[in-house]
Amino acid sequence: MAFVRKDLLGIRDLSSEEIQTILDTAESLREINLREIKKVPTLRGKTVVHLFYEPSTRTRTSFDVAAKRLSADTYSIATSTSSMVKGETFLDTIKNLEAMGPDVFVIRHSASGTPHRIAARTSASVINAGDGMHEHPSQALLDMLTIRQKRGRLEGLNVLIVGDIAHSRVARSNIWGLTKMGAHVTLCAPPTLLPAEAASLPVRVSHQLDTVLGAADVIMVLRLQKERQGQGLLPSLREYAVFYGLDRKKLEKARDDVLIMHPGPMNRGVEISPDVADGPHSVILDQVANGVAVRMALLYLLVHREVPPVRG
Amino acid sequence: MAFVRKDLLGIRDLSSEEIQTILDTAESLREINLREIKKVPTLRGKTVVHLFYEPSTRTRTSFDVAAKRLSADTYSIATSTSSMVKGETFLDTIKNLEAMGPDVFVIRHSASGTPHRIAARTSASVINAGDGMHEHPSQALLDMLTIRQKRGRLEGLNVLIVGDIAHSRVARSNIWGLTKMGAHVTLCAPPTLLPAEAASLPVRVSHQLDTVLGAADVIMVLRLQKERQGQGLLPSLREYAVFYGLDRKKLEKARDDVLIMHPGPMNRGVEISPDVADGPHSVILDQVANGVAVRMALLYLLVHREVPPVRG
Amino acid sequence: MAFVRKDLLGIRDLSSEEIQTILDTAESLREINLREIKKVPTLRGKTVVHLFYEPSTRTRTSFDVAAKRLSADTYSIATSTSSMVKGETFLDTIKNLEAMGPDVFVIRHSASGTPHRIAARTSASVINAGDGMHEHPSQALLDMLTIRQKRGRLEGLNVLIVGDIAHSRVARSNIWGLTKMGAHVTLCAPPTLLPAEAASLPVRVSHQLDTVLGAADVIMVLRLQKERQGQGLLPSLREYAVFYGLDRKKLEKARDDVLIMHPGPMNRGVEISPDVADGPHSVILDQVANGVAVRMALLYLLVHREVPPVRG
Repeated sequence: MAFVRKDLLGIRDLSSEEIQTILDTAESLREINLREIKKVPTLRGKTVVHLFYEPSTRTRTSFDVAAKRLSADTYSIATSTSSMVKGETFLDTIKNLEAMGPDVFVIRHSASGTPHRIAARTSASVINAGDGMHEHPSQALLDMLTIRQKRGRLEGLNVLIVGDIAHSRVARSNIWGLTKMGAHVTLCAPPTLLPAEAASLPVRVSHQLDTVLGAADVIMVLRLQKERQGQGLLPSLREYAVFYGLDRKKLEKARDDVLIMHPGPMNRGVEISPDVADGPHSVILDQVANGVAVRMALLYLLVHREVPPVRG
Repeated sequence: MAFVRKDLLGIRDLSSEEIQTILDTAESLREINLREIKKVPTLRGKTVVHLFYEPSTRTRTSFDVAAKRLSADTYSIATSTSSMVKGETFLDTIKNLEAMGPDVFVIRHSASGTPHRIAARTSASVINAGDGMHEHPSQALLDMLTIRQKRGRLEGLNVLIVGDIAHSRVARSNIWGLTKMGAHVTLCAPPTLLPAEAASLPVRVSHQLDTVLGAADVIMVLRLQKERQGQGLLPSLREYAVFYGLDRKKLEKARDDVLIMHPGPMNRGVEISPDVADGPHSVILDQVANGVAVRMALLYLLVHREVPPVRG
Repeated sequence: MAFVRKDLLGIRDLSSEEIQTILDTAESLREINLREIKKVPTLRGKTVVHLFYEPSTRTRTSFDVAAKRLSADTYSIATSTSSMVKGETFLDTIKNLEAMGPDVFVIRHSASGTPHRIAARTSASVINAGDGMHEHPSQALLDMLTIRQKRGRLEGLNVLIVGDIAHSRVARSNIWGLTKMGAHVTLCAPPTLLPAEAASLPVRVSHQLDTVLGAADVIMVLRLQKERQGQGLLPSLREYAVFYGLDRKKLEKARDDVLIMHPGPMNRGVEISPDVADGPHSVILDQVANGVAVRMALLYLLVHREVPPVRG
């Protein structure tokens, strides 16, 4: 079966069928992510270039592990060592790298839309690994894979996203993906941390965690960037923790089988308490493991433009 | 057929037959640089160490891609993380790395002659990836490969090199290589940017671009390092651009089939205008693609000391 | 034959039989470290993560070469680019990396006991590549392999360790390893550079190099960290060199077949003179070569939990 997409730039422009295909492919590849199975030669001779213009260990390493499990060669171009310090334009850097024949660019950039601009100018596949406050599609896909793994479905589930939604590309990608897949999304945050466009999104909005906690099948806790405090968006980290930080006490009001998710890195004691992060509801490390599987699926599908055959 | 050289330290000490062999080998390997062809196992189990004591993305990545396409293992030793910060001598660093059994050192260093000193003390092959203002042989070879690819030959062609020739190891390597292969070389620059030894080189020299542009089959535009301005070598970048920057207007005086080359990274609007850099005469991205092929050829020839068999 | 250890955290808790097994395995793998032999697929599909929280070229590269010779995939997580800059705890970083399914963590950290704490919390193997002033077991193993290679045995040999023993994890690991294997160890240093616990160690102690030099089969010279001078531990580097620096004159009192070792990086002219470092007694570069073999052995034994079959 063909998969007719060159790039993965966002969740918003995927169909629910495409999301389904990516999640199914990730599931079939997940076993390679276990230690016992050797790597597969499916991308042998292919080249994946990581272009991270913002610091990242987690996402970059996850993509790198995914690429190497498929036997691709990988390159990591760091901003500081790049020709950009010599005054070359960003597009010239890309064009030069492209002339060396890569198959995939994995790009993180602080400016929204950068991966889209590059995708339009290269014949290589482009995967958006986070662009400004816009989208972070592979994160949303691994979140959806984790929920589906734990609950068997996405349709009809209530997903509560708590925290700094205004500045979160993770939240944006999840809103698009979850609602496409039939889940109901509620956002909960102080008014200063809700996006201006909240009213036009297919979501419910709340400012009071207590009142929306009980209905949630899944609670996604977002990282609170401490810099927000200095920007007048927060009263104080302590006060934030009191009203929006997920701790054991607040969790008493939640469903017995609620799933707790966090995209990481966590500020323990701010948006999430250590006992909740490490507690029985937490699927935070499953998210990380599923991240490798989802990225393997994306690399496979975008390079081969074909859904892998199902194993006997 | 044997290739009896351990190191590639400069173009000046190569014979025209050796250059021919390298270019022929690069041509036969170029197809592996295309996406459809898988990597070849010819250097499997071999180790290539990149030692870059000056920042570089382009050249280092190009060598790395070349090595991995041949299935070598590669290591990149950055200056900042190296033992040199602990006070170890450069030669001790090299000796230590050598004791781990590498097959090739690819070395860039700000001091002319550094690769030569290392080559004399190691049994591994050494490739000079740029030493001070001395030579950058793999760049000259990829330039020659590009010209030969586009024009079918090097002999008898008029090649015009424009810009900061005094400080350019690219220019020096090209002067030696092109003249060995029978091309005629003209240098064009303001007097302060011409090398002191210009009179003793097998080249013509001009200070006026307009008068030498018309005869050129190839124009190599060199990068102008903006730091030169502060050194009293230039009136101003703007004035430089007016007299020596290659733009569409100046190009009207050139031959219809002239090739425009640049080793990168470009200062668009200084030594070359964007419409010329991206225009129909430009072969700048072909140079980058040929860079991988030339470096594959060098790694192959230096490690195997043998010319690869021609394909049926 | 089984090898029942998950981690290598120190020499102190190894039995002499285990040390023997590691050295024998290293010896059988050493030939792969030679250029002519290709890499072996024994760790193909396995993942080794280098976590170096102190700068290192030598040890990190040695582990990386060892892992790649066994066909493992390797990842290097540098402190500066890690999520730790975003406020994540060290343990969360490790847990996250672990969720991506690595087989081995190679860890260097300035705090003693860090590898032990991580080993207790991960199912992956942990190799201590240096923790504070505590242990550096792979260095001691490569030192023992080198002595055994040159002298045929360890038992009964007199090993003299000279220099900054107080701050040296290399010395500590060697003291445990050498005495377990039946060698006699003498420490020689000014009183300020001897460890507080020296009296309780199974060693002889001296402050006068001249008096103990003659009996040594092996002299291990330690690196003198120049920062010690500012800490009031040394009179001056010059005075240190006069009394404890190993030079040709002092070496006249040593045995004709004495072995000179140094873990690197060397301060030539301080703890060792250039003519001794490069002289006929020096086995310093053999140590480096044996480092790759020992690390291959460790990776093999810890991942497979089995001693490799003997060849032919």
